[in-house]
Amino acid sequence: MVRVKVIGATGYGGIGIVELLLQHPEARLATLVAREDVGQPIGQIYPHLAGFCDLPVLAPDDPRSQEPADVVFFATPDGVGMQGAPAALAQGARVIDYSGDFRFTTPEAFAEYARRIGKNPAHTAPQLLGRNAYGLAELHRAAIRQAKIVGNPGCFAVSCILGLAPAMKAGLVEPFSVICDCKTGVSGAGKKVSPTFHYPARYEQMNAYKLAGHQHVCEVERELSLQAGREVRVTFTAQVVPVCRGILSTLYGTLVRPTTEAEVLALYRDFFRESPFVRVLDSQAAVGTLHVRGTNFCNLVVSVDSRTNRLRIVSHIDNLMKGQAGSALQNMNLMCGFPETLGLLRPGIYP
Amino acid sequence: MVRVKVIGATGYGGIGIVELLLQHPEARLATLVAREDVGQPIGQIYPHLAGFCDLPVLAPDDPRSQEPADVVFFATPDGVGMQGAPAALAQGARVIDYSGDFRFTTPEAFAEYARRIGKNPAHTAPQLLGRNAYGLAELHRAAIRQAKIVGNPGCFAVSCILGLAPAMKAGLVEPFSVICDCKTGVSGAGKKVSPTFHYPARYEQMNAYKLAGHQHVCEVERELSLQAGREVRVTFTAQVVPVCRGILSTLYGTLVRPTTEAEVLALYRDFFRESPFVRVLDSQAAVGTLHVRGTNFCNLVVSVDSRTNRLRIVSHIDNLMKGQAGSALQNMNLMCGFPETLGLLRPGIYP
Amino acid sequence: MVRVKVIGATGYGGIGIVELLLQHPEARLATLVAREDVGQPIGQIYPHLAGFCDLPVLAPDDPRSQEPADVVFFATPDGVGMQGAPAALAQGARVIDYSGDFRFTTPEAFAEYARRIGKNPAHTAPQLLGRNAYGLAELHRAAIRQAKIVGNPGCFAVSCILGLAPAMKAGLVEPFSVICDCKTGVSGAGKKVSPTFHYPARYEQMNAYKLAGHQHVCEVERELSLQAGREVRVTFTAQVVPVCRGILSTLYGTLVRPTTEAEVLALYRDFFRESPFVRVLDSQAAVGTLHVRGTNFCNLVVSVDSRTNRLRIVSHIDNLMKGQAGSALQNMNLMCGFPETLGLLRPGIYP
Amino acid sequence: MVRVKVIGATGYGGIGIVELLLQHPEARLATLVAREDVGQPIGQIYPHLAGFCDLPVLAPDDPRSQEPADVVFFATPDGVGMQGAPAALAQGARVIDYSGDFRFTTPEAFAEYARRIGKNPAHTAPQLLGRNAYGLAELHRAAIRQAKIVGNPGCFAVSCILGLAPAMKAGLVEPFSVICDCKTGVSGAGKKVSPTFHYPARYEQMNAYKLAGHQHVCEVERELSLQAGREVRVTFTAQVVPVCRGILSTLYGTLVRPTTEAEVLALYRDFFRESPFVRVLDSQAAVGTLHVRGTNFCNLVVSVDSRTNRLRIVSHIDNLMKGQAGSALQNMNLMCGFPETLGLLRPGIYP
Repeated sequence: MVRVKVIGATGYGGIGIVELLLQHPEARLATLVAREDVGQPIGQIYPHLAGFCDLPVLAPDDPRSQEPADVVFFATPDGVGMQGAPAALAQGARVIDYSGDFRFTTPEAFAEYARRIGKNPAHTAPQLLGRNAYGLAELHRAAIRQAKIVGNPGCFAVSCILGLAPAMKAGLVEPFSVICDCKTGVSGAGKKVSPTFHYPARYEQMNAYKLAGHQHVCEVERELSLQAGREVRVTFTAQVVPVCRGILSTLYGTLVRPTTEAEVLALYRDFFRESPFVRVLDSQAAVGTLHVRGTNFCNLVVSVDSRTNRLRIVSHIDNLMKGQAGSALQNMNLMCGFPETLGLLRPGIYP
Repeated sequence: MVRVKVIGATGYGGIGIVELLLQHPEARLATLVAREDVGQPIGQIYPHLAGFCDLPVLAPDDPRSQEPADVVFFATPDGVGMQGAPAALAQGARVIDYSGDFRFTTPEAFAEYARRIGKNPAHTAPQLLGRNAYGLAELHRAAIRQAKIVGNPGCFAVSCILGLAPAMKAGLVEPFSVICDCKTGVSGAGKKVSPTFHYPARYEQMNAYKLAGHQHVCEVERELSLQAGREVRVTFTAQVVPVCRGILSTLYGTLVRPTTEAEVLALYRDFFRESPFVRVLDSQAAVGTLHVRGTNFCNLVVSVDSRTNRLRIVSHIDNLMKGQAGSALQNMNLMCGFPETLGLLRPGIYP
Repeated sequence: MVRVKVIGATGYGGIGIVELLLQHPEARLATLVAREDVGQPIGQIYPHLAGFCDLPVLAPDDPRSQEPADVVFFATPDGVGMQGAPAALAQGARVIDYSGDFRFTTPEAFAEYARRIGKNPAHTAPQLLGRNAYGLAELHRAAIRQAKIVGNPGCFAVSCILGLAPAMKAGLVEPFSVICDCKTGVSGAGKKVSPTFHYPARYEQMNAYKLAGHQHVCEVERELSLQAGREVRVTFTAQVVPVCRGILSTLYGTLVRPTTEAEVLALYRDFFRESPFVRVLDSQAAVGTLHVRGTNFCNLVVSVDSRTNRLRIVSHIDNLMKGQAGSALQNMNLMCGFPETLGLLRPGIYP
Repeated sequence: MVRVKVIGATGYGGIGIVELLLQHPEARLATLVAREDVGQPIGQIYPHLAGFCDLPVLAPDDPRSQEPADVVFFATPDGVGMQGAPAALAQGARVIDYSGDFRFTTPEAFAEYARRIGKNPAHTAPQLLGRNAYGLAELHRAAIRQAKIVGNPGCFAVSCILGLAPAMKAGLVEPFSVICDCKTGVSGAGKKVSPTFHYPARYEQMNAYKLAGHQHVCEVERELSLQAGREVRVTFTAQVVPVCRGILSTLYGTLVRPTTEAEVLALYRDFFRESPFVRVLDSQAAVGTLHVRGTNFCNLVVSVDSRTNRLRIVSHIDNLMKGQAGSALQNMNLMCGFPETLGLLRPGIYP
């Protein structure tokens, strides 16, 4: 039984891991920390938790929020995890951070990412970089098992990297030809209100945003380049549609040689044969994001447009699960030596 | 470990109990029966179940669909359960029927209900009436424990009866003054397509229907009359709004004497003190149907309009859970001697 | 051709009247005033207006915002219209105010309303009270034609008053038996962001609010009492559902004598025979709020529950049209001597 | 004043043109024809039209449905227009067909299209091919003015062709590099019910479909090739998201030489300088499909990803307006010598 602390417990990412941990047989929620709603029981802030968890939310400067834990989740924006991780590690905790703080293993790579989002490029805990692992279990399972600190991947990044890694590793696609056309549900932006996510302004609305560049591109290019063994550059488009949960990423790449859908299917199924949360489907499969909602699965639909010699992968995840809290718990399981799927194997509800 | 058969497995009510049983520690899904999609694995019809349940759907006349089970759910329309229940009982099974077939304990009461929905008023298994229990655990827990056959209540009826039973039992409300203003999500109509539930015709749409009379009124009046010890008549309005899951029933009754919200709260909390799935909340509680989605809870918000001397209860359920499959599993737990909450205590996901 | 000024032009109520005036053959938009987005062309703030209206938004203290107009709309919260109306009237303008400021004709009635919403009960322009008209054309057409200042009714109030006025006037319903169960779309709360109307918190959500009392009750009781010729008290419930536009109000009252649906239909049709925006329909009509979206119509569905001796009216409006900007334009037409329907007769779009 | 007949009046495409014609100053609706709901007034089938149009729906074999008209809209599926057009033309009518029947000018081109959608490749009125025009006014204004018969373009095709035509004409993009990633609202599939568009199966759902090839590709490639003066091939992905109205097409092409956003903007604005329904916007514009809903506008957002040397155009239309009935009316205006924008210049409503 591991004691768990969640920093940033009242955001969507925090509440997501709280929900999962309440049903995890080897974890015990011990401490919830957040800046808002301090002092209230979490089951009052989020009435669906009433009776399941009545821990109070502690302020970051409350002494009780410093009590040791075996696992600490930083479900916090960029910059918070790098401040708090050293102390947590010193107390013997394993750390899983949701932000970009620990997705890069060198100060230089972090700086490039930070500049892209207009943040301070100087990492405040550079001594930890290199000891961290990138928390996409399907690609870095062994490293995560060893790591004391894991940078949970970005939600868009999960959908794109899983969808393209096998093709890049096999050298199937030209490395500068990749396009990631990504559509996300609104919960991806978190619980902070904004005119853009006000219900009347968002229902019946589809739009692209950050056309000048999205911060997740760094991760996608780094990971795909690692798989390809050479530089990969992607054109990335972020779009929002009026669903709450779900990412649908449609991924394109020019084939280096004529390839059939059957060949691609075989390649992908082999690549993910040890990965219980990835389903590889053919182009006739009638699936959508509703079929992975509330689950940690990534459904990949493979197709080849032979007229234009192009590979197309449609990648489906729940942005708050495989795109966030689900991956975080999967990482915790690996770091703690639990079965990878513990507390995560559930089918979701339909409709 | 009980072996379970689900008849009507491919409707929303069927899939709902399948999802729950897959996570129930004492149940094993053995047989799925339906008229559509025969021969396909359920995990192919409903892709979110792929890997969790790959039982094939059997036709009703397939010999394998007749194999004995410990528990049989009839997740079927009116008229199917009464045909199949005698054989199931003869095989030693406990039977839970979703339709109106076993919600009434006399042929006369059934006939009145059947006439209201334009069905044949002659019950085909009248010998079973009187041996059945009405499957609302909060009111009939003891009877359900003893029963071999349970009629699962209607979704609207659950929300109304739970919301008004304490007041009626206490004689707090005039018996002819009750109004049930009910709003349901679209899933309540099942998976059968219709112009009314076509997405473009339903989004941004609110409407009342069946203004001439809804079949659930029979149950509501019968149960409230039982609590009151005298005849109760209700005005009932069914309305649909563009959500998928959820019923919000706003229930009104004229107080027989001035009463405070605090008194009503105390009365309700006492009434439900043994009922783990009912939460009684005061008029300041910020809750809605999203807070019970995917769960078996009924959240009741109590208020008194002293200017007009009226009690008002706002009742929130997930129509597919407490309104259907959740209550069905709760009944199975009672009938089989399992803890009432087994496999049902989960907080849902938010948002 | 009348010159029009809109104060509060950038809220949903402001933009609604701007859209209508752009298509009105006798009106010319002259001045737009608001506190936010000052200096920007309205067609930049609201891109759907680009090319249709490129007037800049002026600050309230900008001298150009004081230029005279023939008609001034105060699409502003409580308290703003009463401050600005005297100057506008002094300049010869006709004034239409959206808030509660001019819905009452005595300082005492206003004070009661103001207390209910926690505002200062002292009206700052009491000399205007008594000269104002309540802007529900169907009941006060003659007075509106004469008035220089009109208080546009509340959106819930429009739906309730139109739905019950004929019955109250005919003495058909017991005056203390009335219940108004009202469901509104989210746009009724305006464009101001809040956690309650954040998309992820609102989709799939139904809830009641302000159970302790909604400010629109004052108007409803006053108007129904006027029709009845005696005091009427209502129980009023405000609820929000995830649509953008639309109010569905289900209205109940106990009949003083047995009455048929046909009698009620005849009574209602007679009452509204001169009212082009009210449609009276029988209980079999398949209509909903989507059928009045974007229009100034109020669709009333009449039914009688003879088992409980109760009248039930289902009232449908677009809260931003008949519930706000549409009524405001209808009032302008009457005040300016234009045909009542000018610029307002359009069917909307479907779906 | 032209007399207008609408064949297929009760589908979404039919009702769309009915709504527009009711507000068109030079058109008079004379005849409505459909296979369903025969004999009912259109204002009863679609209650929002009650009082605006009460023409009855005539069966195709009703003699009154054969009465001459000045303009005939075939708002019908593939195969109907080619059967009826010769007779309509013989009566002197101008014909606008919504289907693929008259989008191609040779029997061979039609056959290729027909094969792609699994229809009979033999056109039944081949003598008309070559006399028809492709009804995208922005590219074929002069031809449409002269034509007696116009094939209204596909909804996806409108969004893609307008978005890419200027770049292709300027030779800015490699002709085999084009990718069209298209997301449509549900109304694009029409009013016919299907399990895919059942509300509970569609809310919270995003999915790709027809991955093996969508019929609109033919039009897109033909038109872009015409602009480019050489063969263009596109990878096309159709996707559905839970909005009712709207298409968001994200269009990608590899630049043949480094080009700035400013250059592209200038090129596009010049290309569309005579086209009142196309707005060209830079990459900072905060627009989405909600801003063109209910209107005939196409909003194009231009951006250049210089890191990957790629042009990206985000194209926004209302699929039932610019994608269907709006373009049809625009074509009628051109064919009849009316101003192109007559009856079409309206801003829509927001939100």
